[in-house]
Amino acid sequence: MPKYHAKVFVTLKPSILDPQGRTVERALSHLEHHNVSSVRIGKYIELSLSGERAEVEAQLGEITASVLSNPIMEDARWELEEVK
Amino acid sequence: MPKYHAKVFVTLKPSILDPQGRTVERALSHLEHHNVSSVRIGKYIELSLSGERAEVEAQLGEITASVLSNPIMEDARWELEEVK
Repeated sequence: MPKYHAKVFVTLKPSILDPQGRTVERALSHLEHHNVSSVRIGKYIELSLSGERAEVEAQLGEITASVLSNPIMEDARWELEEVK
Repeated sequence: MPKYHAKVFVTLKPSILDPQGRTVERALSHLEHHNVSSVRIGKYIELSLSGERAEVEAQLGEITASVLSNPIMEDARWELEEVK
């Protein structure tokens, strides 16, 4: 059965405040990195799946939307790559 | 002055246990996703920088290693893209 490696990127929607990112931005500014702005902190999830490609893609879309992210506040996208 | 958009990916080193990933994996298994394994949860950070490319690259490398990740436990890589 084919095996796949998936990468999922979860980011807060642009309209949602990101206090963690704001804190990192302020810390960087204190460290003299004044040219850094718009720091946003999201999640990067790696997972392995086995099965037929079309089924795995549908499954990954469902997992991403229902378990790995909160569609009310977050955007999510994924990449799938077959493991040879 | 050129502006850049950076993406930083921070992952736990392969030898470090990931209890959060393990918990997600177990939750997925309870939801009948038995073909999912090796769930690892990392961070995905987006930021904007301005300056000359060579300086921004050096700065981003330093920020990634010293502020955004813990090199003892985590691996980090980054991508830099000029904003037109």
